[in-house]
Amino acid sequence: MAMTGPRLFSTGAIVRGAVSHSHLIKPMAPAIGGVRDFGKMTFEKKKTEENQSEKGSSGGGKADQGNKGEELIVSYWGVKPMKITKEDGTEWKWSCFRPSETYKADLSIDLKKHHVPSTLPDKLAYWTVKSLRWPTDLFFKRRYGCRAMMLETVAAVPGMVGGMLVHCKSLRRFEQSGGWIKALLEEAENERMHLMTFMEVAKPNWYERALVIAVQGVFFNAYFLGYVISPKFAHRMVGYLEEEAIHSYTEFLKELDNGNIENVPAPAIAIDYWRLHANATLRDVVMVVRADEAHHRDVNHYASDIHYQGRELKEAPAPIGYH
Amino acid sequence: MAMTGPRLFSTGAIVRGAVSHSHLIKPMAPAIGGVRDFGKMTFEKKKTEENQSEKGSSGGGKADQGNKGEELIVSYWGVKPMKITKEDGTEWKWSCFRPSETYKADLSIDLKKHHVPSTLPDKLAYWTVKSLRWPTDLFFKRRYGCRAMMLETVAAVPGMVGGMLVHCKSLRRFEQSGGWIKALLEEAENERMHLMTFMEVAKPNWYERALVIAVQGVFFNAYFLGYVISPKFAHRMVGYLEEEAIHSYTEFLKELDNGNIENVPAPAIAIDYWRLHANATLRDVVMVVRADEAHHRDVNHYASDIHYQGRELKEAPAPIGYH
Ligand SMILES: [Fe+2]
Ligand SMILES: [Fe+2]
Ligand SMILES: [Fe+2]
Ligand SMILES: [Fe+2]
Repeated sequence: MAMTGPRLFSTGAIVRGAVSHSHLIKPMAPAIGGVRDFGKMTFEKKKTEENQSEKGSSGGGKADQGNKGEELIVSYWGVKPMKITKEDGTEWKWSCFRPSETYKADLSIDLKKHHVPSTLPDKLAYWTVKSLRWPTDLFFKRRYGCRAMMLETVAAVPGMVGGMLVHCKSLRRFEQSGGWIKALLEEAENERMHLMTFMEVAKPNWYERALVIAVQGVFFNAYFLGYVISPKFAHRMVGYLEEEAIHSYTEFLKELDNGNIENVPAPAIAIDYWRLHANATLRDVVMVVRADEAHHRDVNHYASDIHYQGRELKEAPAPIGYH
Repeated sequence: MAMTGPRLFSTGAIVRGAVSHSHLIKPMAPAIGGVRDFGKMTFEKKKTEENQSEKGSSGGGKADQGNKGEELIVSYWGVKPMKITKEDGTEWKWSCFRPSETYKADLSIDLKKHHVPSTLPDKLAYWTVKSLRWPTDLFFKRRYGCRAMMLETVAAVPGMVGGMLVHCKSLRRFEQSGGWIKALLEEAENERMHLMTFMEVAKPNWYERALVIAVQGVFFNAYFLGYVISPKFAHRMVGYLEEEAIHSYTEFLKELDNGNIENVPAPAIAIDYWRLHANATLRDVVMVVRADEAHHRDVNHYASDIHYQGRELKEAPAPIGYH
């Protein structure tokens, strides 16, 4: 059997032995996969002779572990990297996301849907977002690539904070989550993928990097506190932020269409993540990103509405995989 | 077309209209799904006449949105709940997790694998965990069901904290994560599912609930701080905690085998999550949970080893879907 992947760790000293720290990690080697079903993607499990022989040596004296008679494999340190392939049989080149996470964006979503603020907290959320727009417009002007890159570092925070807080609440109260932890974490990961995409188109300079660090420090804590005090308000605000994001991406499209911004080829990561065609352009990317924002808008207004009805999120099943 | 699910929100006042808060949320109605590929599971999309007619009315005047000529759907508030079915065509009854998250645990994993502490931080991590064992043993004695339930509320914290911190770092630094955010969040979710399972077997009383709240408050902050200061140490400690968890579940199995704890039927949630056979028992559940802990042990020792080599997590692809 051919050994294609590098061995991440030696298998010699694992069973009741010290793991020394001199083994090489080969960056970006294909990751080890599990038994989970990854849609149409396949995993190839590599086994070598060392692995086989180790089974023999570590298989003895384990009757008390309840594994008697079952085949033992020395997992992780000893298992060879797996090769992940795409549908067409070519190798999957990303370790930062998996074929199972990719999707085709639903571009038919209504981009104009708007939640009209009627209560005081809703109006507060709406005007907070509206007033944040001014300094942002002033700072970025019509540099929409840069704007997208910078704002996506902020956009990936609320889903993570919300998901974490709902997770901790579920643990503390011994109760189900209705799928909301996953839905909110999915939103955060999706926003992070927006950043990973725009990073390929616009590069941050030193003061933009410094700004992002400062803004994250403030926004993370503010949103954390806001979510603890009023998840209703926090989700509504994100809903409005997403409405503004849709607007910005629509402006971005206009600039692409009138030639003020060059319609460069789409980054490779975007083509694989949103399953775009091979010669997709930046315009196609902005289209799918905007559709994502519209989906987040819906999820967050929905979450806020649940709280408005005096219910808890867990009472209404979350929109998981809603793209 | 038959309308099987309740409508979560009226579709009347959505497009540039106020969403009123009087609509009913029907708890536990099947969740709305997306376009993602859910392995062998299928989604049934419900469409009604209202939905169709709304498309017409909201389809006008949107040329500037870049959607011209494409079919518009009023998503989320207007989309009917989708029915999720299992492989055998029966309805999926959980809103807290999806068919795509279920898996068959790899019971052949080596349960005795141990990382021998050699450096000072490793020894510190090892003895911290060992010393935490004493009060825990004293508190729970041989009540392993209760012990499992209580400790899983703590076990689901490190993955969430680690995942969140790696996520925020990825955003701040404009860099890939190597899949570690997902791997760590998967661990947290898996531990939470352990809790959801043991909750069905043992019920917490008021002082146990109070204790969990206090312990979470302390442990969350301590682990957060520890992870910020030294992820190397934090992951090593979790590795050792998981080694202890394997030991506790082995003791749990012994008590089940000698009849001190009754081997009741497995909770329905566990049967669906780990794809157990229909008349699985508590013993089968403890077996798969123990295998999960062994996998977490590997992931965390591996993460610590990466840091020990002076590398960052993103340089080595994370073991995603490693069960
Ligand atoms: Fe975004
Ligand atoms: Fe967004
Ligand atoms: Fe656990
Ligand atoms: Fe664990």
